[in-house]
Amino acid sequence: MSEKPIYELTASEIVRRTTSGKITAEAMARACLDHIAEREPAVQAWHYIDPDLVIQQAQALDRGAAQGMLQGVPVGIKDIIDTADMPTEYGTPIHAGHRPHIDATCVALTRRAGGVVMGKTVSTEFANRHPGKTRHPMDPLRTPGGSSSGSGAAVGARMVPLALGTQTSGSTIRPAAYNGCFGYRPTWGDFRMVGVMEAAGSLDTLGLIARSVEDVALYRSVLLGQKTASPDPVATKPRRVGVCHTQFWEKTDEATKAAIESCAQAMSKGGAKVTDLKLPASFDAIDETHQRISSFEFARNRAWEINHHYAEISETLRENRIKQGLAYTFEEYRDARDHSEKLKLQMDDIFKDYDVILTPSAQGEAPLGLNATGAHDFSTIWTICHTPSMTLPLFSGPNKLPIGVQLVTRRDADRYLFEVSLWTCGLFGKA
Amino acid sequence: MSEKPIYELTASEIVRRTTSGKITAEAMARACLDHIAEREPAVQAWHYIDPDLVIQQAQALDRGAAQGMLQGVPVGIKDIIDTADMPTEYGTPIHAGHRPHIDATCVALTRRAGGVVMGKTVSTEFANRHPGKTRHPMDPLRTPGGSSSGSGAAVGARMVPLALGTQTSGSTIRPAAYNGCFGYRPTWGDFRMVGVMEAAGSLDTLGLIARSVEDVALYRSVLLGQKTASPDPVATKPRRVGVCHTQFWEKTDEATKAAIESCAQAMSKGGAKVTDLKLPASFDAIDETHQRISSFEFARNRAWEINHHYAEISETLRENRIKQGLAYTFEEYRDARDHSEKLKLQMDDIFKDYDVILTPSAQGEAPLGLNATGAHDFSTIWTICHTPSMTLPLFSGPNKLPIGVQLVTRRDADRYLFEVSLWTCGLFGKA
Repeated sequence: MSEKPIYELTASEIVRRTTSGKITAEAMARACLDHIAEREPAVQAWHYIDPDLVIQQAQALDRGAAQGMLQGVPVGIKDIIDTADMPTEYGTPIHAGHRPHIDATCVALTRRAGGVVMGKTVSTEFANRHPGKTRHPMDPLRTPGGSSSGSGAAVGARMVPLALGTQTSGSTIRPAAYNGCFGYRPTWGDFRMVGVMEAAGSLDTLGLIARSVEDVALYRSVLLGQKTASPDPVATKPRRVGVCHTQFWEKTDEATKAAIESCAQAMSKGGAKVTDLKLPASFDAIDETHQRISSFEFARNRAWEINHHYAEISETLRENRIKQGLAYTFEEYRDARDHSEKLKLQMDDIFKDYDVILTPSAQGEAPLGLNATGAHDFSTIWTICHTPSMTLPLFSGPNKLPIGVQLVTRRDADRYLFEVSLWTCGLFGKA
Repeated sequence: MSEKPIYELTASEIVRRTTSGKITAEAMARACLDHIAEREPAVQAWHYIDPDLVIQQAQALDRGAAQGMLQGVPVGIKDIIDTADMPTEYGTPIHAGHRPHIDATCVALTRRAGGVVMGKTVSTEFANRHPGKTRHPMDPLRTPGGSSSGSGAAVGARMVPLALGTQTSGSTIRPAAYNGCFGYRPTWGDFRMVGVMEAAGSLDTLGLIARSVEDVALYRSVLLGQKTASPDPVATKPRRVGVCHTQFWEKTDEATKAAIESCAQAMSKGGAKVTDLKLPASFDAIDETHQRISSFEFARNRAWEINHHYAEISETLRENRIKQGLAYTFEEYRDARDHSEKLKLQMDDIFKDYDVILTPSAQGEAPLGLNATGAHDFSTIWTICHTPSMTLPLFSGPNKLPIGVQLVTRRDADRYLFEVSLWTCGLFGKA
């Protein structure tokens, strides 16, 4: 039986090898750089990558005595996250050539743990809707999703085992699902956001894109600033699963509907009590609530760019986000924020009756066309409610492209989310 | 009767004159610059001030057609807030010479409204405890408070009518009180924090330091990104006032106790129902809750500085904040965060029985000594609960130095806070 190529190793497998002397960080980095060189012309996941700088980082790790939690693991960093040794351009020509003077907290913690920053992955413009150059690794005519487009495609194309994205509506879960990856959106507030461009702070989180649940758990330990990794999660059967079709079910593709039903059946067969969960009517207008909060905050967060570079902002962003955001009054915003807080508490109550919710990750397979990045609605509810969620790459659609299913748990139950995710993957022989 | 000097005008008075052609932004700026030149050697409120740059800004405003809400108003900006045309050094030599590439949102909104950024006011190290060079304007042997030391002193010394600070525990309310100013801490989340150094995001807000309630309300409109100013607040009598001595009453100076009692009596005489409010026992351990949240987040937020410049961090900060912050486990932090959320909801309930809470702004007058900035405890409860609060400069102590009283209202009731503040000032003939 032939071993899988080095660039296919998960982060956890890499760490076991680097810390036991079986592979150097440099060899690991070179394997990924080689694979990137091969795949990048078609995928275009990277906004910036400097192989020399990558090798320097890896060599420094190999020379050092430390054995970090991510020792020698190549990581992709979404280009709205500051790096002191690489440009950070936030997906816009306005900030072309900008080099931050310090690393974002999440980058500094990644480096402290021995991670190798491979480069900056493509973001849509200001982590919003206007797409960058990245294409789906399995079909260059399709979007990789967004806004964490490059992070999704880079992990999906086996260029790196781990990448950092962000999420304000569905910007991690969706590209992770499209690219056949695990995508994790943490409980809001768990990971520090210093040095991460704020789209809408009331909703923003980091997002992790990976190829195993174990890797997500490992990177979470690093990003929480823990001194040692938490124990690996152990597959755990949930007692009560709520299948939540949401108000977006009508626009959900058949393949996604089938994936949800198939996953629900497997969970039931596996011994969980699986029932339908219909959200209260208060959740119906969640798109409007999300739109008000995200646009009001986004438009103010870009005050400097609006003052000085308005014409260089894409028409899409000006028309769909900034004009609307500036038009909302503070009272309209505050009402939406108050409503979101009520929904969050209602969701806490819902989780008294359910251990985990099963729901679509996206509308379907990655859609054709490079002018948009797919519908974001499917994560809006969970983003607003600050709950942790994970998309599992368990299914595929009519075009043989990946389809994810999303698991959601109550706020603060991120570890439990990992455990249930492992159990669910196990039902499909994928853990 | 002689008119007061130009530099003593409030922001609202300035705007009425600049927009009616009675004074130019340049003349206004020059008046403040002259007064700063006179007072600065003793007070040392400014970390950076470039008179030429100030005059350029003012002249550009005078040439322009726009008539902003802050037209020609000189504003001081705490040096943890990014400015594209001035250095921003966060109170630490680690960032000496750093010039951000864009303005913070609050600065960009200030400029859009016609405000003149006079310079950067001194912050303690990373907006924490280790003091900068600033002295109390009325006694150079006393602290001006902190962490917004320069902003408090600059407004107190009549150098500018308005200044931006920040608050993570008592960093706006305390220096405002010490310096005889109005100090306003908004409902958490109202003002965008892009470009403001994060100390502990779960608690951080901007803070406004001013010389009138009207000015605070005006600047609030600007910072919310409103197109026009909200109507001036009108004095409003609260029905139910809760006098909250808090668990810190024992360490409160006699003069502050007397100020609270005197204010309570006046409010009662003025027709409000004034009763004692004892907080539930769940608030007793609030210092520990605050310490866990602020230190856990702060230590992670400084990940880059810890990686690269640990020795250049003051011993005070390393010992009192960073080591402790790094030692807390995520679970300890999360428990504290959960507790703070419960307290926030409990406070919402308390405000069903009270319209406004009256409580000390600080321990007493600005204390002697320049190695510390005074006790922060007196704002901790309200900071944790995300409630808006205002310190009113209505009293003085045994050394003829200012003593403030703090009013607090429920979350989202910032406008009401202004109205009750005006009414309260009116009771003392000061509105």
